[in-house]
Amino acid sequence: MMVSSVVLVSGGMDSAVTAAIAARKGAIAFVHVNYGQRTEGRELEAFNAIADYYGVEQRLVADISYLKDIGGSALTDRRMSVPKGDLARKGVPVTYVPFRNAHLLSIAVSWAEALSAREVYIGAVEEDGSGYPDCRAAFFKNFEKTVALGTAKRPNIRIKTPLIALHKSEIVKKGVRLNAPLHLTWSCYKSSSVACGGCDSCLLRLRGFKEAGTADPIRYRQGASAKWRKDA
Amino acid sequence: MMVSSVVLVSGGMDSAVTAAIAARKGAIAFVHVNYGQRTEGRELEAFNAIADYYGVEQRLVADISYLKDIGGSALTDRRMSVPKGDLARKGVPVTYVPFRNAHLLSIAVSWAEALSAREVYIGAVEEDGSGYPDCRAAFFKNFEKTVALGTAKRPNIRIKTPLIALHKSEIVKKGVRLNAPLHLTWSCYKSSSVACGGCDSCLLRLRGFKEAGTADPIRYRQGASAKWRKDA
Repeated sequence: MMVSSVVLVSGGMDSAVTAAIAARKGAIAFVHVNYGQRTEGRELEAFNAIADYYGVEQRLVADISYLKDIGGSALTDRRMSVPKGDLARKGVPVTYVPFRNAHLLSIAVSWAEALSAREVYIGAVEEDGSGYPDCRAAFFKNFEKTVALGTAKRPNIRIKTPLIALHKSEIVKKGVRLNAPLHLTWSCYKSSSVACGGCDSCLLRLRGFKEAGTADPIRYRQGASAKWRKDA
Repeated sequence: MMVSSVVLVSGGMDSAVTAAIAARKGAIAFVHVNYGQRTEGRELEAFNAIADYYGVEQRLVADISYLKDIGGSALTDRRMSVPKGDLARKGVPVTYVPFRNAHLLSIAVSWAEALSAREVYIGAVEEDGSGYPDCRAAFFKNFEKTVALGTAKRPNIRIKTPLIALHKSEIVKKGVRLNAPLHLTWSCYKSSSVACGGCDSCLLRLRGFKEAGTADPIRYRQGASAKWRKDA
């Protein structure tokens, strides 16, 4: 079956909503990347659950655990600790993995070229204050030009970032509207059993649901961040 | 020790000459990438020999064997055969690995950012007729802009391609002049014991030495491509 796009699916909420958007345009292929992040196994579980939900046949799991050897991020370096969430913190967070999205996009683009798919989807969000340089619209725009120059397929493979300008609450609303399987997603940076509710990623997610006026369907550690829970 | 640059070293002649150029500016770190290519073990051996030659302490070997799963190239897909060399062939060769250099550069850039190195060196050559889109100067130029947009370090990490406009014979001459360890390098696409002398990579190399008027210090399979050998 011809595939219209390759979707990068971490297993988190943003990638599930991105998959929902891509799926409306044709058959999709899913790629997941393990890079030695703490919650690797749990994310892969979510990836496969979302792929099953969309009946995705073509799945690629790529391992780039060399990022762990490179270090420099609390997400992959066990000697650094993931800080308690603080959405008002300024600057580049310690969970920044140097240039990570370039690796993810390169993998998806190589596969798209091999599959003759026209588009690569990534659920990146230029969220207010997130501070990751490789999450900015300008980065993706320029990467698309790099792809045009560095691949052989014509027309050029496009890089699609449908969530780039949205706030988390808008992503929640879009996900609900498109029937994205939010209950199958995983966002926590710290834990692989029950979401901690206290890391940056949990806080962003919980705030998004609260602002959207919707209950988050996944479970959180009891008492964690009650102030962000809709039911609190 | 502070490292001034990260050098991508495949183990081939071009990367050894590139290392020689980078080494004149300060301490260097070496990165090698395994991507399931046929001659992986032999290339890694050459990488370490060249690193020893330059006394390189910081070495990173990154595995991206997912490129084998992606397929689409005779270099990594065992179902495709590496064609007999033909330097006059037109178009994108079957040994093209889709968007490969983007993966290599991303790895080197992430590491450079973690090490606070200012430059990334790659021995790419926009050789007449090689036909790999990700070997063109325009691709590297634009990738450098992607790096500036997608990384947090300032000043921006630069992408250096000192061989990009050279012919193989000029690379040989430069290597000899800089005392690059050409005798430790490996170029053959097909074999891991004695260079075949017949694949594109061997033919390019042999022609380069012949045109430079220098004998290639490595051994070739007996009788292979005698017409390119200086001693023929």
